[in-house]
Amino acid sequence: MRAVDIIVSKRDGRSLTRDEIDFFVAGVATGALPDYQASALLMAMLLRGMTLEETACLTEAMIRSGTRADWRGLPGPKIDKHSTGGVGDKTSLVLAPLAAACGAVVPMMSGRGLGHTGGTLDKLAAIPGFRVHLTLDEIGRALARTGCALIGQTEQIAPADRRLYALRDVTGTVESIPLITASIMSKKIAEGIDALVLDVKAGRGALMQTPDDARRLAESLVAIGRRAGLRTEAVISAMDAPLGLAVGNALEVIECLEVLKGRGPADLVALSTELAGRMLVLGGLVPGRSDACRLVQGAIASGAGLDRFRRIIEQQGGDPRVVDDAARLPAAPHRHRVAAPRDGYLADIDARLIGRASVALGAGRDRLDDEVDPAVGVVLASKPGAQIRAGDPLIEVHYREPARLDAALPLLVRAVRLADGPSEPPPLVRGEVV
Amino acid sequence: MRAVDIIVSKRDGRSLTRDEIDFFVAGVATGALPDYQASALLMAMLLRGMTLEETACLTEAMIRSGTRADWRGLPGPKIDKHSTGGVGDKTSLVLAPLAAACGAVVPMMSGRGLGHTGGTLDKLAAIPGFRVHLTLDEIGRALARTGCALIGQTEQIAPADRRLYALRDVTGTVESIPLITASIMSKKIAEGIDALVLDVKAGRGALMQTPDDARRLAESLVAIGRRAGLRTEAVISAMDAPLGLAVGNALEVIECLEVLKGRGPADLVALSTELAGRMLVLGGLVPGRSDACRLVQGAIASGAGLDRFRRIIEQQGGDPRVVDDAARLPAAPHRHRVAAPRDGYLADIDARLIGRASVALGAGRDRLDDEVDPAVGVVLASKPGAQIRAGDPLIEVHYREPARLDAALPLLVRAVRLADGPSEPPPLVRGEVV
Repeated sequence: MRAVDIIVSKRDGRSLTRDEIDFFVAGVATGALPDYQASALLMAMLLRGMTLEETACLTEAMIRSGTRADWRGLPGPKIDKHSTGGVGDKTSLVLAPLAAACGAVVPMMSGRGLGHTGGTLDKLAAIPGFRVHLTLDEIGRALARTGCALIGQTEQIAPADRRLYALRDVTGTVESIPLITASIMSKKIAEGIDALVLDVKAGRGALMQTPDDARRLAESLVAIGRRAGLRTEAVISAMDAPLGLAVGNALEVIECLEVLKGRGPADLVALSTELAGRMLVLGGLVPGRSDACRLVQGAIASGAGLDRFRRIIEQQGGDPRVVDDAARLPAAPHRHRVAAPRDGYLADIDARLIGRASVALGAGRDRLDDEVDPAVGVVLASKPGAQIRAGDPLIEVHYREPARLDAALPLLVRAVRLADGPSEPPPLVRGEVV
Repeated sequence: MRAVDIIVSKRDGRSLTRDEIDFFVAGVATGALPDYQASALLMAMLLRGMTLEETACLTEAMIRSGTRADWRGLPGPKIDKHSTGGVGDKTSLVLAPLAAACGAVVPMMSGRGLGHTGGTLDKLAAIPGFRVHLTLDEIGRALARTGCALIGQTEQIAPADRRLYALRDVTGTVESIPLITASIMSKKIAEGIDALVLDVKAGRGALMQTPDDARRLAESLVAIGRRAGLRTEAVISAMDAPLGLAVGNALEVIECLEVLKGRGPADLVALSTELAGRMLVLGGLVPGRSDACRLVQGAIASGAGLDRFRRIIEQQGGDPRVVDDAARLPAAPHRHRVAAPRDGYLADIDARLIGRASVALGAGRDRLDDEVDPAVGVVLASKPGAQIRAGDPLIEVHYREPARLDAALPLLVRAVRLADGPSEPPPLVRGEVV
């Protein structure tokens, strides 16, 4: 088998065989396939597309490039949630402890933020001492004790995906539904779960800009999950404005704690509850969605979710006192308030610009090896739909370096749109694939 | 400017700017652009296409990556011919001395054979002592003395093309009309010529399989030549069966000498005369095609062409006695005759299979660094259309190693198709772009 023949085959629009895809992925994993051939094939895959069969073969080959975790020795359904990424998207930190408190076993492997979108791993890293890199043994102990492990991608899980992703990032081959599907699903299936709820974001702050693209991605992810024997479903949720009010790592941890304390912004509470509820139903713990949501709401009201989060933090070496004392989290030395220039209604907040502003402040990264400042970020004073008076605070900026504030401010000012009359914000959940 | 943005732009079907194309080619030439980004962009260029404007920018950038020769100090029009490659396609060795004998200055830069197609450089290398690698000074002296230099691509001419071509060869990005155009025309324009006749081959033995594709390539080549101020025209000629009877390097040199001696197969004589005639008209040496063809035929009849070839060989260090004594050329130790299995008519000889058989014998190469055996090859006994009796010789195989003969024979047998009734072979020249 020659790599160039496989490239030509995909270039000319043919479907690749399982053997050809195995050859490609094994070559990527071992380094036997030169990067220049891998990137030509990736571009041909992006432009010519891949069938569901090819996507499944690619996913399976990437799983086989590493270890597949096996938690069957632990009682209870193993359930995860995965989001395709957005701005202020912090549901993982809320729903993982809630689902664990309701009987789920949640081996949640997350990524770091890149570009304008944040990453769960960066948020967890804002908690002093929190270790996201655990061995498989440590993960097993964490799951047995607290029902949850919040971890980064290990070297053993789908190593071919890591090399491919790094190559896609620099060769313009990220935005392919089959490639995104194989990348996400290989890691999730290798995690050793029984059920998976996907939160596919749609909108200008998301990878998929339109609801149609988001639906196609959701359908692809669900189909591949089911072929692998995973109970899988997807929610399509809006990512035009940030989720919640806080964007920035420590600021988002504080907001998650607020939700677990029965406070916190309505949109974040609603989406976290919906996703956690779906996890419980899909995992077979509760028969129906309304019961599941009541169970989740009960875990908030009783403090069981907050208590579970405290135990998870402690289990992974973090300082559990942050749960009751947010001042123990990193804080930025300076604040700047963006005020409303006139009376009106908050019509729109552009998630992509808010995300870019938070990268400018240091809360995110443009390249995977950039350092992140856990303390900085922005907190919105209101959500779209709110009535505003001239001089009212719109955004509170938490910053460290004045030069970074200067870089972020024009983006923040552009991100906010005021209107003369009221408008109804669009619904948060746009659809589902079940 | 970031490479990944240029890749994404082409991937999404946008036209690249001159600056973007310059950035790409300069990166290729200096090595600053990693191969994996170059190959992703090449695949996007192949699948998304390039406008004529983009192709012109690419051609110009590749010319600027090296030296552009300047022969304006030499009297007479500088004229070249370029063929897109075929099997038994040896017109260069015939028409270059003929055109020079008729007053043209021919700085002809040729390539080596690859895959099933032969290369002029390999044919020249079959002449004992013949040096194809000359310095620019040596080329100038050769042009001044004999009106012709038959040379390989020098390091100074379009070095970006060399690196790009090596990358295209292993990444499935050869078959793109804009990329082929820029590769051919950058080298031809940098050669320092005034006029160029292109022989674009169409058929199963050619890069372009259909006349439509060949026409599109011819139009692209001619348009780019004219934009660069070159008088350019193209002939589209058939490459379904081999041209002439001989395939293999020394065997083809012998056949060329036959043509220059007024013998040789009719199709090769006709195409060589047509192309040489067009060179003379395009170079302004003769007003019309019929006069030009008479002049070329006269140079054959008078022996002026043969004499010129002798002087060219001598000028470039080769043994000029081969012209009168073909036994001085390398000869294979063994012969094998393929005989007709039955009475009939020779309906078809598949050029691609004949080409693959000659590679199997050692006359060509699958990889650019393979060694070539100058002596081996095949000689057809007849051309399509001929009447055949059972037992008549069809092909004479000149071979060195029996194992290679065994590999070639099944291909040769498959290449020949006999029919019960006579048929008219299709015309050699299929069209022109003038």
